[in-house]
Amino acid sequence: MTYTFLGPAGTFCESALLTLPDAVREERVPSTSVDTALAAVRSGEFEAAMVPIENSVEGGVSATLDAIATGDALQIIAEAVIPVTFQLVAREGITSLDQVRTISTHSHAWAQCRGWAEKTIPGVEFLPASSTAAGAMGLLDAECGYDAALCNPLAAELTGLDVLAEGVEDHAGAVTRFVLVRKPGKIPAATGSDKSTVVITPTVDHPGGLRELLDQFATRGVNLTRIESRPTGTSLGQYFFSMDLEGHLGEPRIADALAGAHRIAADVRFLGSYPSATPLSSPVPVHASAEAYAAAGEWIRRLKHVASGEA
Amino acid sequence: MTYTFLGPAGTFCESALLTLPDAVREERVPSTSVDTALAAVRSGEFEAAMVPIENSVEGGVSATLDAIATGDALQIIAEAVIPVTFQLVAREGITSLDQVRTISTHSHAWAQCRGWAEKTIPGVEFLPASSTAAGAMGLLDAECGYDAALCNPLAAELTGLDVLAEGVEDHAGAVTRFVLVRKPGKIPAATGSDKSTVVITPTVDHPGGLRELLDQFATRGVNLTRIESRPTGTSLGQYFFSMDLEGHLGEPRIADALAGAHRIAADVRFLGSYPSATPLSSPVPVHASAEAYAAAGEWIRRLKHVASGEA
Amino acid sequence: MTYTFLGPAGTFCESALLTLPDAVREERVPSTSVDTALAAVRSGEFEAAMVPIENSVEGGVSATLDAIATGDALQIIAEAVIPVTFQLVAREGITSLDQVRTISTHSHAWAQCRGWAEKTIPGVEFLPASSTAAGAMGLLDAECGYDAALCNPLAAELTGLDVLAEGVEDHAGAVTRFVLVRKPGKIPAATGSDKSTVVITPTVDHPGGLRELLDQFATRGVNLTRIESRPTGTSLGQYFFSMDLEGHLGEPRIADALAGAHRIAADVRFLGSYPSATPLSSPVPVHASAEAYAAAGEWIRRLKHVASGEA
Amino acid sequence: MTYTFLGPAGTFCESALLTLPDAVREERVPSTSVDTALAAVRSGEFEAAMVPIENSVEGGVSATLDAIATGDALQIIAEAVIPVTFQLVAREGITSLDQVRTISTHSHAWAQCRGWAEKTIPGVEFLPASSTAAGAMGLLDAECGYDAALCNPLAAELTGLDVLAEGVEDHAGAVTRFVLVRKPGKIPAATGSDKSTVVITPTVDHPGGLRELLDQFATRGVNLTRIESRPTGTSLGQYFFSMDLEGHLGEPRIADALAGAHRIAADVRFLGSYPSATPLSSPVPVHASAEAYAAAGEWIRRLKHVASGEA
Repeated sequence: MTYTFLGPAGTFCESALLTLPDAVREERVPSTSVDTALAAVRSGEFEAAMVPIENSVEGGVSATLDAIATGDALQIIAEAVIPVTFQLVAREGITSLDQVRTISTHSHAWAQCRGWAEKTIPGVEFLPASSTAAGAMGLLDAECGYDAALCNPLAAELTGLDVLAEGVEDHAGAVTRFVLVRKPGKIPAATGSDKSTVVITPTVDHPGGLRELLDQFATRGVNLTRIESRPTGTSLGQYFFSMDLEGHLGEPRIADALAGAHRIAADVRFLGSYPSATPLSSPVPVHASAEAYAAAGEWIRRLKHVASGEA
Repeated sequence: MTYTFLGPAGTFCESALLTLPDAVREERVPSTSVDTALAAVRSGEFEAAMVPIENSVEGGVSATLDAIATGDALQIIAEAVIPVTFQLVAREGITSLDQVRTISTHSHAWAQCRGWAEKTIPGVEFLPASSTAAGAMGLLDAECGYDAALCNPLAAELTGLDVLAEGVEDHAGAVTRFVLVRKPGKIPAATGSDKSTVVITPTVDHPGGLRELLDQFATRGVNLTRIESRPTGTSLGQYFFSMDLEGHLGEPRIADALAGAHRIAADVRFLGSYPSATPLSSPVPVHASAEAYAAAGEWIRRLKHVASGEA
Repeated sequence: MTYTFLGPAGTFCESALLTLPDAVREERVPSTSVDTALAAVRSGEFEAAMVPIENSVEGGVSATLDAIATGDALQIIAEAVIPVTFQLVAREGITSLDQVRTISTHSHAWAQCRGWAEKTIPGVEFLPASSTAAGAMGLLDAECGYDAALCNPLAAELTGLDVLAEGVEDHAGAVTRFVLVRKPGKIPAATGSDKSTVVITPTVDHPGGLRELLDQFATRGVNLTRIESRPTGTSLGQYFFSMDLEGHLGEPRIADALAGAHRIAADVRFLGSYPSATPLSSPVPVHASAEAYAAAGEWIRRLKHVASGEA
Repeated sequence: MTYTFLGPAGTFCESALLTLPDAVREERVPSTSVDTALAAVRSGEFEAAMVPIENSVEGGVSATLDAIATGDALQIIAEAVIPVTFQLVAREGITSLDQVRTISTHSHAWAQCRGWAEKTIPGVEFLPASSTAAGAMGLLDAECGYDAALCNPLAAELTGLDVLAEGVEDHAGAVTRFVLVRKPGKIPAATGSDKSTVVITPTVDHPGGLRELLDQFATRGVNLTRIESRPTGTSLGQYFFSMDLEGHLGEPRIADALAGAHRIAADVRFLGSYPSATPLSSPVPVHASAEAYAAAGEWIRRLKHVASGEA
């Protein structure tokens, strides 16, 4: 498999890709945007792309949500959840925090670590970089005009720079969720702890439509872990919903709920089933188990057999 | 086909049976109770029994509801809705209302016509009969100790007695619904205007269980026209529900809703699909049509085919 | 308080009345039917009537359900749940089962004890009585034509007859629930374990109406312990629902749910709140507690105060 | 009232502000970001700020959704929906399209008009501007390095430049919705066509929580026109919902639904009721009307009065 990801190299997205044993052994080529990465998959240039889909602080990544919801079909085959944690790395010769005068990093990263930096290194100056990885790489240059950089653990490791401090983000616990996307094909086997992603466009101008949609999942014992509305682009108040479900297309309750959604919605796009990177939040109710489906199906078949007069 | 019905001959139940062209040509044998009639079907003595299931004034007929819900399986293959209307028939020689001194009929019938009788024939006396038909038959006897009888139109016709007045019930519009029951077998073909009867026993001690059950039907666009709770006999508050649905087992939405009920309930007993005797109250929603089911099923099949890696 | 009950004296209904300390000390006058008993309350002849409302084997008592749902308003102020258990009492001189040749009792009671009787006293004969109490009373007569009677424990005690066997019913555990009814007035104080009874008539011809009704209760965390449909008498398929709820009118969630039902239904008749005779089946959800209602109410008041421009 | 808006002057946001007669007469000061504009309202520097909240193509404006959902309370008192339409204006001396060689505008605007531009003016060159208004203003400079600018009608009017073409956007019909925000206070009187905005944070880790929330609105006949999930920032899958409802806090159904949401949710923030800029999509159901609420409230009061024993 050939891989691309939202670059540059050394960012959280490459960390996400490196959670896949396969991707560790293969070439990983950074793309400059989510759209570019997904276009490269659609065109066949790469077989798979790792892109961010959701951040615990920023929310859904609109570029990804919209790009996989429209255009040629794509499929999610894996997910990774990566802690958003930062380290302070320094150029050669700088070995303690009190020697640091200037820090470079991406402005987003600076926003997330600024409290720590200003408190720990009074008077420190900030120099914007085009990415956290670029800030770290710059320190390898002898002519580098700053002393240190805030970057993720992968960039620190790749550059081999000295780490002066780690876990310096002001709010601990933030994570970003990434998904590995490729052209539609065989889906990963069910593991018993799987998620599915689906995009549903309700019929137009139908008050209560979202509730009816949720009913289709609730009556089949299917739990939603993420639901986001995105505009269809036609007019205000016209949305499609991007959702993650706990369960795998191979489970009858999931296929049944999706069929139910298909009947009441204007459009349903199935985006794949894949192993969940985190524990599921709710067990499968007994009434929605594969056994319950098999028993009900067998009961209906018997009823119809008798009803056909052939019994 | 051999028929029995809740007797005696000439009652509303025989009128119901006579709505079936087949039954007009065949022998019709009265049974003395609903239980007797259904036992005779179960034992094979008769092929089919017509019994009352619901009256617009008295409500569900518990004997029928309980007898078809338990014991050996039975199946409803037809229904008939008969107006509860009474005529006053007289013995030979009595030709006008002012000659009538005494009226005999079943006490239920008297209760339903008493207002008319006491107003129209001041001072009239009431003599209880074992059935409305028996009251009418008695008038054929020369020794008959009363002048007139309140009976249904069929008994009036069978006895050939003079009808002094018709439509004499105090509250017009009452009807009784009867069902034709036989052993399970081939079900009547769908006509586009069908009903199905089902008995559902919820799981024990589950608050909100009825609402969840109704959700299974509502999410598949299935309308309920009758729902009655009957005790399971185990303890207070433990019920089964006897329900009529608009639709036929052959429709995918009905089979789907029944399968959903089967998964969440402790027990579901299907009691048949049959042509509705009255117009249906709600059309099939587009999302629950056979076409919507076919399209959703085909969509899921395609998804699974791609997912299997064989596409 | 003056009391009547569904007689005759010594039946289960008097046992139910005797669970009330007050009623033990007062005169208790039997009525010959539920309608008679309730009419006597409506007319003011008696202040309260104890009548059966529900049996764990036979289901709802239609006469009671219909009589309290229509006509002048009535109110339930207490309930009692009485085990349906039978004793075999004998006339003087009969001291063991093998001396018994003939048993008298009401045919319903015989149906419930017949298995035991025919197995324990082979060849025993049954003589119908007008009530179980009447059968027992007859044994006090020197001329009595039978040896023993099946009656409830109260009749056995009242007559002082020898008890040859007890708990002889074929199916143990059956109970009947009785309610004490009077004209509307002060309702019993909340005990923390209360029920309320309500009669709701949905708007006509509204598919899905029952589900919407149940939603009104479910969204306020109100649990239903009994729901029965009874015909309104207008046409087939037109029902009112008789329901018992866990909770007391004094609780905001109950008043709120009733108000919700009042808005969507054609008619709601409140039939009282009273201490439950049995433990409740579900706790009050936190979100439906009086505290949650008080907090939400206070929040809305503050919002409106700010919104009024007077803040 | 003193006004700020998301600047610079002459953008769609100022157009939105100009839909308010009051704002036309007052000074309008541009802010450089949504956060800056709202901070200026919170600090008291300005009394009200107009900011974008939703675009029919781009979706919710996260900066606005998040800023009004957290921090010191704010209130929406008006909304405006502005068509996203572009005009091509030219510098002095350029009077026809075939004279245009270079066009400047904001890159977003270029993306929305590029199809038209490249087809209509083959070989045209694009020069990025910091805003559409800035691009237009630049044309007033004698030294201007480009021939024309794509801007909105307001900027065209403010600059007095010649309009060579209008409605040149590739996809017609796009609109942006803006809201006028100030500190909490008196809310606009109900007009009969009002919306309310609310932010609801469900309790943590509660499968089915969104459906229960929607039930609170549906059972009170309240229609949602917008629902968006935004991360609470604590962990993946923890969201708050930003919603618009049809209706005004002064309507009992709205206050009732909000109180219901308050009881089941972890937090509810009311963000105001204001006249809707567009026609409402669904009428108030009869059962949710102020009359139905008044009748139900009066019924409950009477019940409680009788129940108190003071009747």
